[in-house]
Amino acid sequence: MVSEDQLIERVRRLVVSPAARRLRGTRLKPNGLQTGIGDDAAVLRPGAGSEWVVTTDAFLENVHFLRKTHPPKAVGYKSLARATSDIAAMGARARYFFMTVGLPDACAGVWLDNFLGGMASAARRFGLILAGGDTTKYPLVVASFTVVGEVNRGRAILRSGARPGDLLCVSGRLGEAELGFRLLQRKPHEHKRWTRLLKKHFYPEPQLVVGEWLAAHRFATSMIDTSDGLSTDLDHICKASGAGAIVWGPKIPVVRIPPELRRLGLDPLDLALHGGEDYELLFTVPKKFSSRLPRKINGVSVTVIGEITREKKIILVGPDGSGAPLQPMGWDPFRKKR
Amino acid sequence: MVSEDQLIERVRRLVVSPAARRLRGTRLKPNGLQTGIGDDAAVLRPGAGSEWVVTTDAFLENVHFLRKTHPPKAVGYKSLARATSDIAAMGARARYFFMTVGLPDACAGVWLDNFLGGMASAARRFGLILAGGDTTKYPLVVASFTVVGEVNRGRAILRSGARPGDLLCVSGRLGEAELGFRLLQRKPHEHKRWTRLLKKHFYPEPQLVVGEWLAAHRFATSMIDTSDGLSTDLDHICKASGAGAIVWGPKIPVVRIPPELRRLGLDPLDLALHGGEDYELLFTVPKKFSSRLPRKINGVSVTVIGEITREKKIILVGPDGSGAPLQPMGWDPFRKKR
Repeated sequence: MVSEDQLIERVRRLVVSPAARRLRGTRLKPNGLQTGIGDDAAVLRPGAGSEWVVTTDAFLENVHFLRKTHPPKAVGYKSLARATSDIAAMGARARYFFMTVGLPDACAGVWLDNFLGGMASAARRFGLILAGGDTTKYPLVVASFTVVGEVNRGRAILRSGARPGDLLCVSGRLGEAELGFRLLQRKPHEHKRWTRLLKKHFYPEPQLVVGEWLAAHRFATSMIDTSDGLSTDLDHICKASGAGAIVWGPKIPVVRIPPELRRLGLDPLDLALHGGEDYELLFTVPKKFSSRLPRKINGVSVTVIGEITREKKIILVGPDGSGAPLQPMGWDPFRKKR
Repeated sequence: MVSEDQLIERVRRLVVSPAARRLRGTRLKPNGLQTGIGDDAAVLRPGAGSEWVVTTDAFLENVHFLRKTHPPKAVGYKSLARATSDIAAMGARARYFFMTVGLPDACAGVWLDNFLGGMASAARRFGLILAGGDTTKYPLVVASFTVVGEVNRGRAILRSGARPGDLLCVSGRLGEAELGFRLLQRKPHEHKRWTRLLKKHFYPEPQLVVGEWLAAHRFATSMIDTSDGLSTDLDHICKASGAGAIVWGPKIPVVRIPPELRRLGLDPLDLALHGGEDYELLFTVPKKFSSRLPRKINGVSVTVIGEITREKKIILVGPDGSGAPLQPMGWDPFRKKR
């Protein structure tokens, strides 16, 4: 049987060292981290003039992933990506993360190495350093991640700043992760054929550069990541801002469904409106900035899909110009199963 | 079925409001928290000249508590106390906490209210504000806590600072939590008779004031909390400091076992050496400070129980003066069951 100390040593070797190695070659300074893994707690020294942005997210077997279906590398990657997306949604730079993980004996060998490998690769990609954690033996894989980001004082982009007249924008393309999830549900053993379509479900990309760009240029008045689905996440922005919105259906950059999968009867607009886990950024921009809004930021497309309104309703306008209320029907772990 | 938004509202009502109310009457300033629950992430503004101390701990059904045995109020209290003890062990002041929790439907009603009530009472006691979280439906209660503390720059007390000749000290009394745990294991239905003996198992007290005092007076060269048991936690200090220790057995403030429980055959020294979850502070003090070391800090006793040595061994000295190696035999979630 493996001991907790041996486990921590493996985590250190697989996750901490690569991050520390990468650090030497970049402009990131490690000196914010005074004390990392191996003490009772980590000690972080904030930069002058900065604020910390902190988020926490669970990643649980049979809710967020299935051990039989999801490769351990994807589980490790996605669990960290998911939490980091909240840092992107504040316009902050990702800095440190903390993990608690419960593991069955059966996962303490190769499965864990692959899980940690996926996590290490996500950490490298996002610029994150593992600063602490806690490991326990458990019958199911239950993990929780806390990610700490840094932002210049007062520059964090909240959900509550949208004002009537602001343009509603979204990064990337919506419904892609949901398409991958639906394919996996129907044909779990054929997924090698659909590697490209499954990529966003397995390895989502927190839009850190887009978020930081928007914060640095003071472009966005409000922002959220599309983790629960456009209809639900837009509702969060509207409620927090005390406003409503009009969404122009035909403007939404919806997922492209390959011809050979049309027989599944999936509606791209439906996937885009209510499908979760795209981890794109949904944000609002004052109308006067519209001409200066780039079409792409760091290679990621930005699309105007609607407008914030005074009236506290969300209306979806169809191709014929007729409007109908858009209900929040995205992901809610307590309401329904998907 | 309860929705996630309703659940967050209950958490806000039960946990956030009392903490916010209490804040108004104290010297603690709420202005460090720029944005709390309800956005993608919390925004924290550090005080000038301070560092953040961050720790994370899981609290899992069937590992850290049994739903049939442990009152939900104690589960809520202890889950937060346990994580906060790591902040005490750094000599830091507790400031904010974050929680992820997975919950079965059966626990989403009265059980949750009591759990949150216990958590709120712990938060008030420790000076903590809930700054964010994540809730999910799950077949087992799985929670994870991240606690953020604040300490003056460079004043955090690490495990690694013990030097040969330093005195080894401990707060409070050791083995009490283990005694409560053993009683609970043997007679789960009689625990009302032993309320006082179970208190430290159900409602442990992180020694925040003792820790802060030691950091403020620069008294301690190293520190850890006795979460895994003296033998294991002392081993952590010795390994981190590259040193060894002598422990004077008769000096250890061991649990008092009432006469009517002597028939259980429990050895107080064994409970004190290897029993976990006392959450007392184990720390080292340079010998030259020995005359200035108070016997009590904030009403909590402080006892010198040994000395740090150059030789990298831990020796337990018995009443007859003979010494024997002390093996780390405390709590390890991956090694054994208790």
